[in-house]
Amino acid sequence: MAAPTISFTRGVPPDEVLEAVAPLIADCLREVLATNPKQVLQYGLQSGHPKLRLILAEQYRVDASQVIVGNGSLQLLNALAATLIENRRETVFIELPSYDRAIETFQRWGADVIGIPVEDDGISTDILAEKLQKYHPRFVYVIPDFQNPTGATMSLTKRHALVGLAREHHFIIIEDIPYRQLRYRGEELPMLRELSPDYVVTISSYSKLIAPGLRVGYAIAEPDLIHRLTSHLEKNCLSPVLITQAAVARFIDNWLMPDQIAGLRLLYTSRMQAMQEAIAEYLPDARTWPTDGGFFMSVYLPQEADVTGLVDRAAQKGLHLTQGSGFFPAPLGSLRQFAGFVRFPFSAVSVEQIHEGISLLATLI
Amino acid sequence: MAAPTISFTRGVPPDEVLEAVAPLIADCLREVLATNPKQVLQYGLQSGHPKLRLILAEQYRVDASQVIVGNGSLQLLNALAATLIENRRETVFIELPSYDRAIETFQRWGADVIGIPVEDDGISTDILAEKLQKYHPRFVYVIPDFQNPTGATMSLTKRHALVGLAREHHFIIIEDIPYRQLRYRGEELPMLRELSPDYVVTISSYSKLIAPGLRVGYAIAEPDLIHRLTSHLEKNCLSPVLITQAAVARFIDNWLMPDQIAGLRLLYTSRMQAMQEAIAEYLPDARTWPTDGGFFMSVYLPQEADVTGLVDRAAQKGLHLTQGSGFFPAPLGSLRQFAGFVRFPFSAVSVEQIHEGISLLATLI
Repeated sequence: MAAPTISFTRGVPPDEVLEAVAPLIADCLREVLATNPKQVLQYGLQSGHPKLRLILAEQYRVDASQVIVGNGSLQLLNALAATLIENRRETVFIELPSYDRAIETFQRWGADVIGIPVEDDGISTDILAEKLQKYHPRFVYVIPDFQNPTGATMSLTKRHALVGLAREHHFIIIEDIPYRQLRYRGEELPMLRELSPDYVVTISSYSKLIAPGLRVGYAIAEPDLIHRLTSHLEKNCLSPVLITQAAVARFIDNWLMPDQIAGLRLLYTSRMQAMQEAIAEYLPDARTWPTDGGFFMSVYLPQEADVTGLVDRAAQKGLHLTQGSGFFPAPLGSLRQFAGFVRFPFSAVSVEQIHEGISLLATLI
Repeated sequence: MAAPTISFTRGVPPDEVLEAVAPLIADCLREVLATNPKQVLQYGLQSGHPKLRLILAEQYRVDASQVIVGNGSLQLLNALAATLIENRRETVFIELPSYDRAIETFQRWGADVIGIPVEDDGISTDILAEKLQKYHPRFVYVIPDFQNPTGATMSLTKRHALVGLAREHHFIIIEDIPYRQLRYRGEELPMLRELSPDYVVTISSYSKLIAPGLRVGYAIAEPDLIHRLTSHLEKNCLSPVLITQAAVARFIDNWLMPDQIAGLRLLYTSRMQAMQEAIAEYLPDARTWPTDGGFFMSVYLPQEADVTGLVDRAAQKGLHLTQGSGFFPAPLGSLRQFAGFVRFPFSAVSVEQIHEGISLLATLI
């Protein structure tokens, strides 16, 4: 038997999901070009496609002046970091572990990035409160629903505690919610924005719901901050690709979203369950987080596990992993103890591959 | 008679050109999504769509590793500035006047921007040689064909002189050639790249040839620089919108480009001629530049012209102009003398509007 190739690296939709949605996107693009070609083919407004901004304003119950649509949410996160940190010596809090590209972005713009551990029910608001005695962060970046990488969801109690601390200590919360609509069980909790809109910048995207290649992400914030983000992006790339934004607006307008999300939930639910079973069976002593949706589960392998060169050793067997240290801010990220952290994206692997991959990993530690 | 609304502001294709090309783009997008959906819908390579990179590599006779395709050429120019200037105290030479957004970009990344006057046959290589006694520029940014804003084209003699100076003084030339294929008379001159590939970074886009809203631009450079640009862009926006890049590749592959360019040349030739006639007739004492293609002509209004508040006074009559000072690097850009510089983009105005607009302007000075 040849070595399997199983990839637990990037959190991406599987190819079959993209192939299924492609004809729908093609229809939307055709409609957009037939009805208002000059709006999407001319240089456009950096604040985003007007129709999609209106749809989002209605969805988030804000004014359209509080919405910017960009080419992917990382572009907006980068613009936020540029605007809020701007090479000053700012402190930024993140969850520990957190999204590797967010950490890299904040550090690149000159922030001191401090991690607050993620517990079963989300960021430790006790440790956060403690750190606030010493630091005054510019913002706290959190992924409240099905966090990347842990899969944990912030409890209602902690959501209230977090916005209470933001009010008391005057810091901004950036809530990044790309997975929010991909809940496979349990009840939806309110967005931080719903608890305290004044202190919260919300960012999200359609990468997980329709297709990453469309590069359609958005931010909801106060008009003044939206204005600064718009100006930053105009200087960096003149105007956005509007045609994919227009296609998303059309996709929503054509009522395609409910079926699309229902299909994704069905597919991913079985994969999440398989991942939970596989971890329980093959890595019973690993520390993991309760996960009810999204793309990811993660583990700390047990203390006694042999994690030396694990990523390389696994790759030789056809099992591709991401270095766990990337989810921790350097210099923490370089420490030995974080080699025991492994993220398992379950979105683009079959139930069979999940069992095969986790059981193979168990033989390597 | 109501006041006319005539806009000599941005250099953009007219709406009728975009409406005509829209169905062709829709077909290309449909083909792309039908044949290889996952390539354009998944997260993609920041260096650009593989097929379009190959097409460009063949066109420019370079290896594909020397090509990066981004979401518009300003994105790549910004990445070049970030990579080459990078907040160090670098000196950068530009043509005087030059593309306003290029000037803003270089200054934003911390460069001292020094302008070298544009003569009838392009940048003054004599003054350039003189300045090189004092300064060591990181790069010289030029638009050799139908320059923005003057409309001037660099002569063959000056092209040789410029690359000779680059070789002698070891600076990079960035040649920006978005209008190169829009020549309406006279013979094509070699690109600077053809005279000395080692010192030249070439950037261009399909904004003027197909549609700005596609946001497809590219750079040709040494593999090492392409690698650095790719890394910069990946950090800023993860991956590009590939679907519009794929549509451009399909557009070229379907042999649509020759007819497209022929149609544009036909339309714009009459507009350029009308602009030349109108300037000769209504502004006979203005200093202008010989123009054989592109989107722009420009003038220095005569010394005795009343240019005080000209942009505002013209706007009140329905004639929209751009502040001339933007095409000169600050603090030069704020000086009184540059208020007499006016750019006339002729691409998106009818022959009638051109005569009406220039004759109206003549009454205001």
